[in-house]
Amino acid sequence: MPAISDSVEALKNTFRSHASGVCVITLLDSDGNPVGFTATSVTSLGANPPLASFNVASGSSTWPSLCKATWVAIHTLGENNQALSMKMSTDHTKRFLDDDWQIGPKGLPIFPEATSVLIAAIREVHSVENNAVVIVDVVEGLSGIEQRPLIYFQRGYLIG
Amino acid sequence: MPAISDSVEALKNTFRSHASGVCVITLLDSDGNPVGFTATSVTSLGANPPLASFNVASGSSTWPSLCKATWVAIHTLGENNQALSMKMSTDHTKRFLDDDWQIGPKGLPIFPEATSVLIAAIREVHSVENNAVVIVDVVEGLSGIEQRPLIYFQRGYLIG
Repeated sequence: MPAISDSVEALKNTFRSHASGVCVITLLDSDGNPVGFTATSVTSLGANPPLASFNVASGSSTWPSLCKATWVAIHTLGENNQALSMKMSTDHTKRFLDDDWQIGPKGLPIFPEATSVLIAAIREVHSVENNAVVIVDVVEGLSGIEQRPLIYFQRGYLIG
Repeated sequence: MPAISDSVEALKNTFRSHASGVCVITLLDSDGNPVGFTATSVTSLGANPPLASFNVASGSSTWPSLCKATWVAIHTLGENNQALSMKMSTDHTKRFLDDDWQIGPKGLPIFPEATSVLIAAIREVHSVENNAVVIVDVVEGLSGIEQRPLIYFQRGYLIG
């Protein structure tokens, strides 16, 4: 097998060819305003008790709010949510200007067109270099729109 | 949106509808024998420096070896690797009986039919209830077979 000796190039080469389900994570900032971002790192961390994890860059616009927040809403996205995914990963000042969200459990901003939503409490945040692993306790959920999954692959979107 | 008040059912409902890329992680046990498992939780944790993370159950057959290991090989899988994914998630005594692997960098067992391989050093292990988050430093990579990604969804496999 051809070797890739540069570690950064090795990482990029692998994650270009690794498919990820797409989620949107929302929360409230310390003034009670909605904030959130698109995440391709959400994964289960066991069902008993129900735990999930996701990664976030500590340079991201949502990071300061995440450090102070108690609750997050994790939305899994599907084939109808590509525009939402793109909106939640670009200009952070424009993410909640449309009327595609509502107030849900714990006062969290919820996008009802998602496939499903988990309401979860932040349990641990482990900073690692310029990023962090966030571990959450799932407390309840919401059922959304049943649809094929939205997948991020080769720097673009696929429908599963 | 219909609420799911049971937290375990909420978690299961969401992760059934969340697509995940499929990986195989291999390492050596303390006797130098190959061990490994299928993982759907592998994700990038930033490129500078190159870091990745994955989750593992502390009841899994590989957990005791993982606690003592220095190096792991993370293989991303594609459309031709479904049988490998299934083999590496069932009977752990039968995972390295075939001649589909070879010795690679750091003495790690490598499956050359994968899409790509990352060679990484275990940096941190955070135990959370019956599971753990493992954070690794990527040091190099191998290019494998270019192919469509293997995806786990609704408790089965999809080709992306």
